[in-house]
Amino acid sequence: MKLLIVGGIAGGASCAARARRLSEQAEIILFDRGPFVSFANCGLPYYVGNVIKEEKNLLVATPELFKERFNIQVRTESDVLSIDRANKKIQVKDLKSGSIYWESYDALVLSPGAAPIRPPLPGIDLPGIFALRTIPDSRRILQWISEKKAKDAVIIGGGFIGLEMAENLVRCCIHTSVLEMQPQVLPPFDREMVFGLHEHLKSRGVTLYLGDALTGFEADADGKITVLSKSGLKLRTDIVILSIGVKPEITLAKNCGLETGERGGIRVNDQMRASDPKIWAVGDAVEKRDFLTSEWTTIPLAGPANRQGRVAADSIFGRDSKFRGVQGTAVCKVFDQVAAMTGASEKALRRLGKTYEKVYLHPGHHAGYYPDAKPIHLKLLFSPQDGRVLGAQAIGEEGVEKRIDVIAMAIQMKATVYDLEEAELCYAPQFGAAKDPVNIAGMIAANALRGDAPLAQWDGIDLKKDFFLDVRNKEEYKKSHVGGALNIPLNHLRSEMNRLPRDRAIYVYCGVGQRAYYATRVLLENGFDARNISGGIQTFDGQISG
Amino acid sequence: MKLLIVGGIAGGASCAARARRLSEQAEIILFDRGPFVSFANCGLPYYVGNVIKEEKNLLVATPELFKERFNIQVRTESDVLSIDRANKKIQVKDLKSGSIYWESYDALVLSPGAAPIRPPLPGIDLPGIFALRTIPDSRRILQWISEKKAKDAVIIGGGFIGLEMAENLVRCCIHTSVLEMQPQVLPPFDREMVFGLHEHLKSRGVTLYLGDALTGFEADADGKITVLSKSGLKLRTDIVILSIGVKPEITLAKNCGLETGERGGIRVNDQMRASDPKIWAVGDAVEKRDFLTSEWTTIPLAGPANRQGRVAADSIFGRDSKFRGVQGTAVCKVFDQVAAMTGASEKALRRLGKTYEKVYLHPGHHAGYYPDAKPIHLKLLFSPQDGRVLGAQAIGEEGVEKRIDVIAMAIQMKATVYDLEEAELCYAPQFGAAKDPVNIAGMIAANALRGDAPLAQWDGIDLKKDFFLDVRNKEEYKKSHVGGALNIPLNHLRSEMNRLPRDRAIYVYCGVGQRAYYATRVLLENGFDARNISGGIQTFDGQISG
Repeated sequence: MKLLIVGGIAGGASCAARARRLSEQAEIILFDRGPFVSFANCGLPYYVGNVIKEEKNLLVATPELFKERFNIQVRTESDVLSIDRANKKIQVKDLKSGSIYWESYDALVLSPGAAPIRPPLPGIDLPGIFALRTIPDSRRILQWISEKKAKDAVIIGGGFIGLEMAENLVRCCIHTSVLEMQPQVLPPFDREMVFGLHEHLKSRGVTLYLGDALTGFEADADGKITVLSKSGLKLRTDIVILSIGVKPEITLAKNCGLETGERGGIRVNDQMRASDPKIWAVGDAVEKRDFLTSEWTTIPLAGPANRQGRVAADSIFGRDSKFRGVQGTAVCKVFDQVAAMTGASEKALRRLGKTYEKVYLHPGHHAGYYPDAKPIHLKLLFSPQDGRVLGAQAIGEEGVEKRIDVIAMAIQMKATVYDLEEAELCYAPQFGAAKDPVNIAGMIAANALRGDAPLAQWDGIDLKKDFFLDVRNKEEYKKSHVGGALNIPLNHLRSEMNRLPRDRAIYVYCGVGQRAYYATRVLLENGFDARNISGGIQTFDGQISG
Repeated sequence: MKLLIVGGIAGGASCAARARRLSEQAEIILFDRGPFVSFANCGLPYYVGNVIKEEKNLLVATPELFKERFNIQVRTESDVLSIDRANKKIQVKDLKSGSIYWESYDALVLSPGAAPIRPPLPGIDLPGIFALRTIPDSRRILQWISEKKAKDAVIIGGGFIGLEMAENLVRCCIHTSVLEMQPQVLPPFDREMVFGLHEHLKSRGVTLYLGDALTGFEADADGKITVLSKSGLKLRTDIVILSIGVKPEITLAKNCGLETGERGGIRVNDQMRASDPKIWAVGDAVEKRDFLTSEWTTIPLAGPANRQGRVAADSIFGRDSKFRGVQGTAVCKVFDQVAAMTGASEKALRRLGKTYEKVYLHPGHHAGYYPDAKPIHLKLLFSPQDGRVLGAQAIGEEGVEKRIDVIAMAIQMKATVYDLEEAELCYAPQFGAAKDPVNIAGMIAANALRGDAPLAQWDGIDLKKDFFLDVRNKEEYKKSHVGGALNIPLNHLRSEMNRLPRDRAIYVYCGVGQRAYYATRVLLENGFDARNISGGIQTFDGQISG
């Protein structure tokens, strides 16, 4: 068995190592266009920000280690030019010597990754415009910052890498702006969930230009760049970071006639096998069905790439491992805030025409009686038919990714909101509460499904016509309330119930939804048609004002 | 419906609030012997340590709030003396006035909690010997410390509360000793897992006396107390904290003939109903079947008590909610270390005669290339038949309870180690790794079950007779190794394989188990009988030397 692997980062490197564990006899050769294999590209923004101080820390494995430990030949700076499927061989260019040669295979794994999108706009090739995908990229950025004594940066794209770069450029004392086409940062999240992140970024000196599209760049006489936008912005800057997203590298695959899909990735089956029985493909370059929605999707994340690499190796050596799909778990630290999600977003469910229900909540990350509890803003999406958990998103300072990880495990196991209610999670005052945020999310959802506490959503009611009951205290009400809402503090509700209409729906809200839940129960038990507006005023802020 | 609830902390308070949400008409009266209801007893050690600065922060709800918000009558300082089941009434003593009266019920919920165990030893009633279960207890402790200018404390019992108290007494600049009958702290954990905690406690100035039993106390002439032990210790101290454990408060239940069990708790069914159809019992006073092992067990934890309270209320109002049992999730912060567990321990599985397999691992809490990754010492227990996850324990500084929470969710959903392998968890360099510790645990276990990397355990092999191969580098080997082990560094294994025997099992180890895994694969593929010793030298330290 002679196994060739094209691309030596997450997916390719995992595949190579796994292949060796499955066979001592196989000849395994790993090709990479760049000078490194198996490096930590998720660490690159932090290398730019000098949080990770040594370049060598980014190297998970070296060619020498592959040779000595795994008896795997690594050929770096080797560009694979073409695939001859009929004769099972690939054409390789050695970038150091310039020589070109053919290498034959019994099995071929493509792990070429994805390339940063560089839109063909005026000025896109000006010096000072960078993407960040490789160690040499980060070197070039650092060198440019240092040589130009950069004071201003513009990041194109407010996704995960864009925001990580914003944090790290601010760390370098560079004034940073982010230009994002969507009206929100972190586009995989639902917009109302990242509302608070916008404020947080601004508070840290990052200027946000949302809902505006890049139209091009101009070179200025003094060596600066002006970034131009659809709305007419002209942002003068020393450096531009492109983080619009990535595009699967499928030139090789396409040129040899492998099937690709509408998301621009190489189509593979559950064993990561491409449309040629001797070729497998893994990582950012492939498209896979989403675990929950069954949509074709590309998920350029290291975890799934690693798993795919191992599945491909298993398949090559005759094992029937399957890649179960991706569920879109992701996390991003943005200064002091953490944003995490798993499963489907509301916008994805809406796009797919799936029925769903949602709840919002804002619990503390640990028991309120212990100092420094920080709120977690959590959204849970679930099926109104059977309560199956479909997705979750959370933002906050502490304990955010923990709750998303628990829900990620729940989604994988096809759990329902009734299961979340019952989850028995760690509780000591520093870590959680007798009712963990995950439990509370499940309870609110289950209460709604059981009909105990019907929910309403700010984005589903008529703010002008519907009847609103604010059950917070008078002081809270005075500070701000939904126009026209009647205020009856929860503790007075039983005695002042006669002020409420019996002929129409009463939309009850409070600060976060808890008092409104109690009020809704009181009203329902007394024959009113009451609904709790999920997430209360805190969610209103994100969903309506935000 | 007239509902009486005896005991107003976690289970009783939850039951009362839930009952009101289910019925506006019911008359609900909550009795408590103490001056408070619904207080955060998990916060008491931190109130003693002045981390929680205000007593009022411990009060989750007051009698006034119960009245105003829930229309629930709370009677504090009211001791319920007896239950007349035939006539459905309880006898109550008002501790303020001394008057005694009867109160009738349609439904009765017992949530009397558990009392600290006070063994009937000489001197047990000396002044200066305290337990910590209530707010008044914590006041008395603080007052004693201040009046006696206490410099030395002895804690009897090294369980969760004992260790939390140790941390908080050290915070009060009191030299603290812990006397524990078991040869380990945190007895619910397996011993080798808490080995590092012993070192950590000592490094923080706590003196540990393990495997030694309390025999009594002597009053000293100068007002100090001498603690006496079986081994002959005489510890002079200013204050003693008893945290030997708690005992269900079942006097009321027993006196009226309700069924109790071998674990000393009130027996209840899945609806939390006791052996009388009009009486329910919840919280620390009951015994319930364990979710995994089906053993009768008492679990004095707030989370399960809350859930039981709600289930009892549901049952009273005709709903068919069920309490699914407890799975023993618990967490304890001990200075800078966190210990967490879920599911069954190895000692519990062994006691029950269940077959199990186990793996040890020591991954970083986040990617190694990002600064300050801290090791998590993790143990996973699973079924060798079908891979079902049975339990997990973890110790470390960061990210410990997150992994246990994820595994707790997995256990609840009856997940297998194959599911843990595939879990798609949050990964950014601050939070995890492309292969999260949960994934790695699953992979090691699954590799063993598939036969890819057979495991051995330090406690299951003959250190004198078996053949050991140490695949670490020469320097590591020189520092310390298992007596008689042959050292062939992993990278030389293929070339020096001829030094290994073909007629016997080769037990391979390294630092934590990863290199040994690679080595095991190499050897198996080359026809040797190789087994990876789970957890490597790091586990040896806890399991054998510890």
